[in-house]
Amino acid sequence: MRQHRIVLLPGDGIGPEITAVAKLLLDAAGEQHGFKLNFEQHPIGGVAIDASGSPLPASTLEACQASDAVLLAAIGSPRFDALPREQRPETGLLSLRAGLKLFANLRPVTILPALIDASSLKANVIKGVDLMVVRELTGGIYFGQPKGRIEADGDERAFNTMTYSRTEVDRIAKVAFDLARDRSGKLCSIDKANVLDVSQLWRDRVDALAANYGDVELSHMYVDNAAMQLVRNPRQFDVLLTGNLFGDILSDEAAMLTGSIGMLPSASLGSEGPGLFEPVHGSAPDIAGQDLANPMAMVLCAAMMLRIGLKENDAATALEGSVERVLAAGFRTGDLMSEGCTQLGCAGMGEQLLQAL
Amino acid sequence: MRQHRIVLLPGDGIGPEITAVAKLLLDAAGEQHGFKLNFEQHPIGGVAIDASGSPLPASTLEACQASDAVLLAAIGSPRFDALPREQRPETGLLSLRAGLKLFANLRPVTILPALIDASSLKANVIKGVDLMVVRELTGGIYFGQPKGRIEADGDERAFNTMTYSRTEVDRIAKVAFDLARDRSGKLCSIDKANVLDVSQLWRDRVDALAANYGDVELSHMYVDNAAMQLVRNPRQFDVLLTGNLFGDILSDEAAMLTGSIGMLPSASLGSEGPGLFEPVHGSAPDIAGQDLANPMAMVLCAAMMLRIGLKENDAATALEGSVERVLAAGFRTGDLMSEGCTQLGCAGMGEQLLQAL
Ligand SMILES: CC(C)[C@H](C(=O)O)[C@@H](O)C(=O)O
Ligand SMILES: CC(C)[C@H](C(=O)O)[C@@H](O)C(=O)O
Repeated sequence: MRQHRIVLLPGDGIGPEITAVAKLLLDAAGEQHGFKLNFEQHPIGGVAIDASGSPLPASTLEACQASDAVLLAAIGSPRFDALPREQRPETGLLSLRAGLKLFANLRPVTILPALIDASSLKANVIKGVDLMVVRELTGGIYFGQPKGRIEADGDERAFNTMTYSRTEVDRIAKVAFDLARDRSGKLCSIDKANVLDVSQLWRDRVDALAANYGDVELSHMYVDNAAMQLVRNPRQFDVLLTGNLFGDILSDEAAMLTGSIGMLPSASLGSEGPGLFEPVHGSAPDIAGQDLANPMAMVLCAAMMLRIGLKENDAATALEGSVERVLAAGFRTGDLMSEGCTQLGCAGMGEQLLQAL
Repeated sequence: MRQHRIVLLPGDGIGPEITAVAKLLLDAAGEQHGFKLNFEQHPIGGVAIDASGSPLPASTLEACQASDAVLLAAIGSPRFDALPREQRPETGLLSLRAGLKLFANLRPVTILPALIDASSLKANVIKGVDLMVVRELTGGIYFGQPKGRIEADGDERAFNTMTYSRTEVDRIAKVAFDLARDRSGKLCSIDKANVLDVSQLWRDRVDALAANYGDVELSHMYVDNAAMQLVRNPRQFDVLLTGNLFGDILSDEAAMLTGSIGMLPSASLGSEGPGLFEPVHGSAPDIAGQDLANPMAMVLCAAMMLRIGLKENDAATALEGSVERVLAAGFRTGDLMSEGCTQLGCAGMGEQLLQAL
């Protein structure tokens, strides 16, 4: 029987509840499709700070490095907001991305017909949206040097560096071009080349690579215009290629267009080694531990992990199918509740998903 | 009779057409309200490059510096996209902002009841939105040093610096706090303090200043979350305080929520000297010279100039009233046309506005 080593990182807030549901479904999918998942669970984020003082203990990173895939639920808690950045939950996530060299963050944004009314956008604008943000994840202003705070002339000054090298741009652009080729053949690269030097290099390299992708229709768009166009007509986009910061902002905007970020998974990949799969939503501390969380994004992450990380395509499709069937049957968690539907908690939703599998 | 010296910068694309309408209305408003505007017209952007090789000729900057207020229509044309940045229209605008020390960019976003259907958002989400983005305009990554492109170890690397000093943050934050005090008393400061050092300084200073504004309710929000919350529920915001880059992105997103960016003005102010007033929309090269442009944002800019720049409040209110009456009478330019309305060109709309004044 095929075996896969999975590291589960439940993290903070609603993380443990939605991780439990995903594990249940993954076990069942394995049984149905002839493979076994060996789970290890490790702390990250706030719970890791509480336990060991570090948001990414060395043992967690090592376990991830030795795994076939990592499934992370959510990190973050307002309890740590006042701490210096090195001691905050988010830093654990950034260190994990760097430690696993996960330079490519894939954020699909699709809208299920059953959930179209959850959107704040008109149905005719949002219907059929199916786009993918390809965000560079280990470079840009998130990791650029120099950075810091200095005293200067009786004033204080702080700074960060937004930087990309040719090699870094080429690597992420290839991922986006390849994806565009497999999808509709349309790629839109986002930058601020009318103002930033780093964006001019970005645009030059994307243009240079386009020569190898004659079948992909490439366009460029300034980030401010992209923020507008996503609102005006999100259907115009298929694959969006972005740097780390622009991708952070635009992928969240794009996710919220659907009105149901409780449904959106993401994958972070390197050129080798395990991928990291995590929902787009956060740790939702306000509803943590109350059996109110929506576990569906986490289950769709598990499906993405099966397909991209473990090549278990049939099991992935089965998990996705169970989410669709449960929605079609009218079951909803509180975040997506609407008239005529049946409201369930996190565990209850897990049971329905299991039955539908 | 009161006299004011106004520099008109029609710029590129639809700029000259909408400037002509604004001038007509300003002259009429002056006659009605007992003041005279002395106009000078100067080139900026693409037309300035064509005429003199520079996107901001010294004579244009000097005229602006000697004026009481500057009214700019739009700059930019795809004809210059391939040129190095120093020779592009946008650079003229950035140099003008720096040359006039316009550190505070005010971008009001309101939705007129008559135009609610133009939005891609549902009417119940967008109705009553009335927010103001206060964007820092002469600092941040737009002007930060060092920046450039270098060859290193057989690779190429490009970089820009996002930087703010305490003095710069304090100066723009005060503008936002004062505005919030005059409006609903709610201020939301945007940053990425969970990742960026420059954002931590930003947040520290905003928190420090809050002590002087006990009547203002201050909150902080990460820029990615703000991009989401603007889509989910824009009515939660009143004054938004941002750095240069985050403001560029979020103010455009916020503007597009209304569906009618052809209606939105902006003001850029320094601590002394003339302010710059310009519509949020661009130069729309695709419809330039065809009498199709919507001049209303430009007229609302003229009103903002009268009120903020020249303290001619009555004339400002009169201009705004004429826009409202013309909309209420069902007149629309092509960008906002809907069933049952009467479509007009740019000049025709100008005539209606003049009659309604
Ligand atoms: C938590 C934070 C550091 C992170 C980021 O900015 O990358 C998050 O917003 C995300 O998009 O995954
Ligand atoms: C044209 C460009 C340089 C400018 C900016 O980025 O500031 C524009 O997008 C704006 O927001 O006024």
